[in-house]
Amino acid sequence: MNDVLAPGGRIGILGGGQLGRMLASAAARLGYSTHIYEPGACPAADVAADWTQASYEDLSALHGFAEGVDLITFEFENIPSSALDALVSACPVRPGRRALSTSQDRLVEKEFLSTLGLATAPYRNVESLADLNAAIDQIGTPAILKTRRFGYDGKGQVRIADRAEAEVAFAQMAGAPAILEGFVNFSHEVSVIVARNASGQVSCFDPAENLHRDGILRTSTVPARLSNSQQQDAILLAGRIATALDYIGVMGVELFVTPGALVVNEIAPRVHNSGHWTQNGCTIDQFEQHIRAITGLPLGDGRRHADVVMENLIGDDMDRLPALLEEPAAALHLYGKAEVRAGRKMGHVNRVTPLSPRS
Amino acid sequence: MNDVLAPGGRIGILGGGQLGRMLASAAARLGYSTHIYEPGACPAADVAADWTQASYEDLSALHGFAEGVDLITFEFENIPSSALDALVSACPVRPGRRALSTSQDRLVEKEFLSTLGLATAPYRNVESLADLNAAIDQIGTPAILKTRRFGYDGKGQVRIADRAEAEVAFAQMAGAPAILEGFVNFSHEVSVIVARNASGQVSCFDPAENLHRDGILRTSTVPARLSNSQQQDAILLAGRIATALDYIGVMGVELFVTPGALVVNEIAPRVHNSGHWTQNGCTIDQFEQHIRAITGLPLGDGRRHADVVMENLIGDDMDRLPALLEEPAAALHLYGKAEVRAGRKMGHVNRVTPLSPRS
Repeated sequence: MNDVLAPGGRIGILGGGQLGRMLASAAARLGYSTHIYEPGACPAADVAADWTQASYEDLSALHGFAEGVDLITFEFENIPSSALDALVSACPVRPGRRALSTSQDRLVEKEFLSTLGLATAPYRNVESLADLNAAIDQIGTPAILKTRRFGYDGKGQVRIADRAEAEVAFAQMAGAPAILEGFVNFSHEVSVIVARNASGQVSCFDPAENLHRDGILRTSTVPARLSNSQQQDAILLAGRIATALDYIGVMGVELFVTPGALVVNEIAPRVHNSGHWTQNGCTIDQFEQHIRAITGLPLGDGRRHADVVMENLIGDDMDRLPALLEEPAAALHLYGKAEVRAGRKMGHVNRVTPLSPRS
Repeated sequence: MNDVLAPGGRIGILGGGQLGRMLASAAARLGYSTHIYEPGACPAADVAADWTQASYEDLSALHGFAEGVDLITFEFENIPSSALDALVSACPVRPGRRALSTSQDRLVEKEFLSTLGLATAPYRNVESLADLNAAIDQIGTPAILKTRRFGYDGKGQVRIADRAEAEVAFAQMAGAPAILEGFVNFSHEVSVIVARNASGQVSCFDPAENLHRDGILRTSTVPARLSNSQQQDAILLAGRIATALDYIGVMGVELFVTPGALVVNEIAPRVHNSGHWTQNGCTIDQFEQHIRAITGLPLGDGRRHADVVMENLIGDDMDRLPALLEEPAAALHLYGKAEVRAGRKMGHVNRVTPLSPRS
């Protein structure tokens, strides 16, 4: 599909969490209707025209879904290959498989980034305990052993402080293919939300500075602490990644800031938690930008018109709702999840202040 | 209901047009789900959890609807009394009947405003041709004969340039109760979007300056051309109206600016087209403000952080979509209506520029 999907068309979204929900709302603003595919609980269904509740193994449901929409996108990268096979035969899927297969596998991703000449954490493929011990010899400790696939929010990761811990750590992978990553000595972490459309047009939002706790993003702040040349580097490398993947849509690129270079931590082929600040800091936010990119509309201008601190509301952060509702500069975005659970992202708040000069 | 409806609750919305649609999206941002009641085509259904398609005469459908939601609001004021009777017995309806009965009838509305000491256009009740002729004697021409009920966007109105036209004009009312309104010699028209909640808290957005063509709003601009004291007068009188009606929710108050005073044109007990600029000019927009008011949450701060010109996209204005999508400062809001028709509101665009000093 190199054509434009005109407003009025229907967009299918794989995944019905908060990202799917905010994509659906943005699509509606542009006059599209949406259909969510989600096996489990589905906050997105409340703001979408339709919802197919079926598993990713249900090929007949997948076919029916694909035939009822003009275009398919997704809110998460761990979509089973068999499901994608079933979908792409019936309907364009954007972003495409290249971005998915690259980002679904930490080893493939690191090799792809290295090929582009970009800095990453030192890494080694680990298929056996012998591999792991050899990797520790080369990379040193501390290091992190990570499953190559299906990790998110710190899951599927074991920290190795000392090589005596190698065997226990390897056992925790339970036979899953893994990589060992060395630590990067970074001062802080930033991310760039980059958009690219089928015409090759690229647009980045200002980098955000991210703070994690317990492996989960807590806050994203714009402007980030970056020199002018670091900011430009960040944007250029994000654009290079998107172009090399022939990417269509919005992508998150996480970067470690080190004295020498920006080191790519990981890429996410989807709208990204660290881009939620754009909802209140830009005329066109990351969700609308993604919809514009996949439908072939011109990308929006990513200019920021305010400073923003985005704070995730996780688990019992929801108890603070009464106070948050009283804050004059706080824009609330709740996800409509029925149950509060520890570690669960329930919403976020964007605190908006007038644009400051670049620091 | 003086209690707060906590996020997670379900809000019923009478009417499924663009106002219902944008209310539903705002409710979702605060974690509420929505259920639309709409007999006809329903742009709002695409962003709501549920939709009852039934007429306002279907008491059983109304009952079912009311029993499935925690709270009911509406996007239009011409709700039949019998439908309201059926609803209020099962569920709180906000704003309440006082505001509806006042604004549904131009005569009652004008009398209410006069009682508050507010200036209105000169008016007379017209029940017969003799009444009309007497009214013309008192008010003069030109004047406008308007049905007391069910008028909107210039419908149900006849302009009388000369008393010789009285008989033809009266015949056009087809026996409907009417009023004759004299012309007001105004320089421009502004409106205030005022919110009030059950605790009596009141908050106004900055007045917008409105331009109509063919009886339909074309643009709303903030800041409006108003002196500081006029701006304060506008806000004070809007607050006075809301308080006198014991109003709960967001209300639009249209004002004519004359050298002597602000003359109230009409009030609309709902979110208002002239408040759409708040979506991109304020941290909390009129739709969220309405949801906050009716659910008992604290009102948001209505402060404006940008200048905005809102332009309605009417009928074949939609042909300009390609150019609008290329404008960097243009935030598009399309309503997802299936069919473009002359005079039909298809969407709007908010053009955002940095905050200017008050003019």
